[in-house]
Amino acid sequence: MTLNIYLSGEIHSDWRERIVAGASGLDVSFSGPVTDHDASDDCGVRILGAELNKFWHDHKGAKLNAIRTRHGIAGADIVVVRFGEKYKQWNAAFDAGYAAALGKSIIVLSPPEHQHALKEVHAAALAVAEEPEQVVQILRYVLTGALPG
Amino acid sequence: MTLNIYLSGEIHSDWRERIVAGASGLDVSFSGPVTDHDASDDCGVRILGAELNKFWHDHKGAKLNAIRTRHGIAGADIVVVRFGEKYKQWNAAFDAGYAAALGKSIIVLSPPEHQHALKEVHAAALAVAEEPEQVVQILRYVLTGALPG
Amino acid sequence: MTLNIYLSGEIHSDWRERIVAGASGLDVSFSGPVTDHDASDDCGVRILGAELNKFWHDHKGAKLNAIRTRHGIAGADIVVVRFGEKYKQWNAAFDAGYAAALGKSIIVLSPPEHQHALKEVHAAALAVAEEPEQVVQILRYVLTGALPG
Amino acid sequence: MTLNIYLSGEIHSDWRERIVAGASGLDVSFSGPVTDHDASDDCGVRILGAELNKFWHDHKGAKLNAIRTRHGIAGADIVVVRFGEKYKQWNAAFDAGYAAALGKSIIVLSPPEHQHALKEVHAAALAVAEEPEQVVQILRYVLTGALPG
Amino acid sequence: MTLNIYLSGEIHSDWRERIVAGASGLDVSFSGPVTDHDASDDCGVRILGAELNKFWHDHKGAKLNAIRTRHGIAGADIVVVRFGEKYKQWNAAFDAGYAAALGKSIIVLSPPEHQHALKEVHAAALAVAEEPEQVVQILRYVLTGALPG
Amino acid sequence: MTLNIYLSGEIHSDWRERIVAGASGLDVSFSGPVTDHDASDDCGVRILGAELNKFWHDHKGAKLNAIRTRHGIAGADIVVVRFGEKYKQWNAAFDAGYAAALGKSIIVLSPPEHQHALKEVHAAALAVAEEPEQVVQILRYVLTGALPG
Amino acid sequence: MTLNIYLSGEIHSDWRERIVAGASGLDVSFSGPVTDHDASDDCGVRILGAELNKFWHDHKGAKLNAIRTRHGIAGADIVVVRFGEKYKQWNAAFDAGYAAALGKSIIVLSPPEHQHALKEVHAAALAVAEEPEQVVQILRYVLTGALPG
Amino acid sequence: MTLNIYLSGEIHSDWRERIVAGASGLDVSFSGPVTDHDASDDCGVRILGAELNKFWHDHKGAKLNAIRTRHGIAGADIVVVRFGEKYKQWNAAFDAGYAAALGKSIIVLSPPEHQHALKEVHAAALAVAEEPEQVVQILRYVLTGALPG
Repeated sequence: MTLNIYLSGEIHSDWRERIVAGASGLDVSFSGPVTDHDASDDCGVRILGAELNKFWHDHKGAKLNAIRTRHGIAGADIVVVRFGEKYKQWNAAFDAGYAAALGKSIIVLSPPEHQHALKEVHAAALAVAEEPEQVVQILRYVLTGALPG
Repeated sequence: MTLNIYLSGEIHSDWRERIVAGASGLDVSFSGPVTDHDASDDCGVRILGAELNKFWHDHKGAKLNAIRTRHGIAGADIVVVRFGEKYKQWNAAFDAGYAAALGKSIIVLSPPEHQHALKEVHAAALAVAEEPEQVVQILRYVLTGALPG
Repeated sequence: MTLNIYLSGEIHSDWRERIVAGASGLDVSFSGPVTDHDASDDCGVRILGAELNKFWHDHKGAKLNAIRTRHGIAGADIVVVRFGEKYKQWNAAFDAGYAAALGKSIIVLSPPEHQHALKEVHAAALAVAEEPEQVVQILRYVLTGALPG
Repeated sequence: MTLNIYLSGEIHSDWRERIVAGASGLDVSFSGPVTDHDASDDCGVRILGAELNKFWHDHKGAKLNAIRTRHGIAGADIVVVRFGEKYKQWNAAFDAGYAAALGKSIIVLSPPEHQHALKEVHAAALAVAEEPEQVVQILRYVLTGALPG
Repeated sequence: MTLNIYLSGEIHSDWRERIVAGASGLDVSFSGPVTDHDASDDCGVRILGAELNKFWHDHKGAKLNAIRTRHGIAGADIVVVRFGEKYKQWNAAFDAGYAAALGKSIIVLSPPEHQHALKEVHAAALAVAEEPEQVVQILRYVLTGALPG
Repeated sequence: MTLNIYLSGEIHSDWRERIVAGASGLDVSFSGPVTDHDASDDCGVRILGAELNKFWHDHKGAKLNAIRTRHGIAGADIVVVRFGEKYKQWNAAFDAGYAAALGKSIIVLSPPEHQHALKEVHAAALAVAEEPEQVVQILRYVLTGALPG
Repeated sequence: MTLNIYLSGEIHSDWRERIVAGASGLDVSFSGPVTDHDASDDCGVRILGAELNKFWHDHKGAKLNAIRTRHGIAGADIVVVRFGEKYKQWNAAFDAGYAAALGKSIIVLSPPEHQHALKEVHAAALAVAEEPEQVVQILRYVLTGALPG
Repeated sequence: MTLNIYLSGEIHSDWRERIVAGASGLDVSFSGPVTDHDASDDCGVRILGAELNKFWHDHKGAKLNAIRTRHGIAGADIVVVRFGEKYKQWNAAFDAGYAAALGKSIIVLSPPEHQHALKEVHAAALAVAEEPEQVVQILRYVLTGALPG
């Protein structure tokens, strides 16, 4: 049993690296968005030509990123959605909704202070964790049945 | 051709009323979430029993609300998602993602200052409007072909 | 918004009647299995011919009942699954699994003593109630936003 | 032709081991739930934090187990559902219903005394066996055309 | 609960009329193929122009008939497939396979002498009857719970 | 049996009117795109604001029109796709592909000179006609079994 | 591009062997039913126990064979359905209908004398051939673009 | 993350070769139609027998080609649709519509002079490029996050 896992959301902390490192040795395959902020913002105009209007600048980029995002979520068994302390993070919530409608297993990784605001997202999740290490423990349990010592 | 329209998102302004009033005479049917904030927050414990832990208090409520939300989105031809000036509004973005994965036509109603933060949501929409009256004009055009004078 | 509701499970108490009576005045439509125990058991052989072997006797009947059950669940927005105090009730759990895979909103109605044994079924539900009146309150809230006084 | 087989149900006898051993040499791949009873019961709170209320203790665990169960059933060609002599085993019937709605080929493994109570589950199955060795014979026949001597 | 019923197969006896008459008073809606043999054979060339080659003559007609057949089966809750004593009746078996893949409830109406040759079709059915009146009894039972006296 | 029919393609001749008039008295419901060329081209900027760049001017309009088009095709039993003598008509071919992937019954209405260039579209159709009156005859036959005199 | 091909239908001639031999060197994978007539007829009772009634004898066998058949068709890109000169061959037509509803590419292999009786099945096919060697030529063309010399 | 890419459309220039060469070293797999114009036109009659009528000559060929096209599009993550300067190219627009309805990520490759005529197709795309090298840049970005220097 291999698990394909899409890591959605926050790109300003090392949560992805901690999960990937912690899951070393497990039969898992990770994917996620482009995490280079500038590349992600400017990919559309860099490849397809500049736009005067910021809306279309962003639009072109968001659509290129959607190619990667949709492919990753559609191919995933589990979608982990991380909400950090800052920013609007509507793309994370959007990914969660998208994954929920596809029937994916969702794990939300979020800090306690966002509990109330995330209650609808949490309600669609099979697990709500606060630390990346808990996500690793979930993956290990799901794959091997082993619990933390 | 009747259009079923789900009005998702912000519950603190009169945007739903303005759309419903403006669409008077069109062959449309509207649905949306419970917009009484307190009822929406407390429905779970009021019906199914109190919880000491705020997480489960919210969880019970969010799941009851999901019965209505999922039914409304699943039955909609068009999902209008409103982002206001304030609050996290992750449930709105979640609904947008959910609707996108189901292939629904999405109209986003959002203020200019949220343009960049909403670029992924906008990229999944068939229209991005700033005023409820524009949503009404879209509905009128889609149903009758008539444009604003 | 009309809600179609399938009432699955126990046929030896008046829970269906209590829900239907309580929901009087709400925009709901109820369906459910044939609740005449003898008819349900013998329908296959009564219509299609006797069987010496009890397995095939039951098999013919269960398949005729499946015509009704599948139609009811497939057309439902909400599936209420009732587990009573007695009997194996595997058909109720089967219906719950069937409804879950179809993405239906599930409400489980079960007594406290079955909590642990039903944990997998409860985990797939959007609400777990103990009394039929709570189901009525959920339906009223989902349809109208009104909570019990 | 490789067959992916999910082995659902009873965890207190050696039926899984007998099937896996008997199928040695066949082009099959088996999966199933975590069969360590204590781990299965406590996984939620061990990883995500303790709960005072037994309902939520069980709920957290059942949802983690659902990540594995749904993945296994969704990826299976055949779902074997075992009902033993004891316990409620509603999770087994739930899995059977879930598999049926997904159109999976279902083999039920059950003792004669449960025949009547399982008639709805049997009606959704392509085979009803009493011994694990019969399941092995089915797998061998389906893969190779060979029948028991 | 209204049942939509597609009556597929043999067009040379009065079985459809017997079912429709017998089901008088039940909440059912019937559809079926064009039963005028000559019209069914020649519709393609009559409307779209003659063909020298019999294959294309038949091809054009079969495709026009498919518009009606697919619409009827797709909208049906129950597909009744009738095999008569004569002819190849491959279209009936084709309809049965088509209905099975769509998850429709299938009732086969066939004479005893075809039992062995129809075993794969029977295996996909929820009921196998010999007389149209049994189909009526099934419809009455499924809709009302009433069994023949 | 009501048939929902979407009339896609050419907007510069009276083919839609001829079909609708000819089908008078049949149990059919027609839908189609906005056929006012200017409104169709400019709807996006008229409602959502002007664009300097023609690409985005057209993009906004095409997306609004997509709300109507997708709704019409998704709800149709039959999609009639008309190719006229002039213009690129890629939107007609796009609609045909869209309808084919959804499994809709397709009728193509096209002049003989386009036969070779349309062969892939014709191959996905259940009928290829040259005159609107043939489409009417098909609808009458499908609904009533009656052929032209 | 690998093509998975299910070879359905007649089991009394060497058509499967001729296709498999002819396709040597192509990137194809073949599957099909158990072609040992006696094993196919008796598998149910040999594994799951004898039946006095021939209907149930056949029923048990047909259901075991369905495990293999459904798996093969569901996993196929192309379903080749062979109708021979003799027998009812309703299972072949059933498989064709099943494959059609799943959107599989269908190739029918049938003798000229069955042309009229198979017109509905032919209408659902992308190719109608008379000789196994034509099927091989189709597979070679689809995979490599090469036509017979 | 491997990307499967179907290259649809124009067969008279070297755009496919430029994309395949440019994507050297990326984890991509390409497929596309048979690009030998004569083989593509005549495959049907060469394998399945001559036709006097050009319509059926083309029909047989278009259906054989559909086996390859549908398989390629169904298995693709990304469908690139190329419109050249010449010809009707309705098959390209048909493929785009087919891909859109399946939810595939679409990249359109088209010259500026076709902008207005392709606005509906562009509206369904996640990127609109003018040069094959831009498609390569998109693939590199989606797979690796790297942008052109």
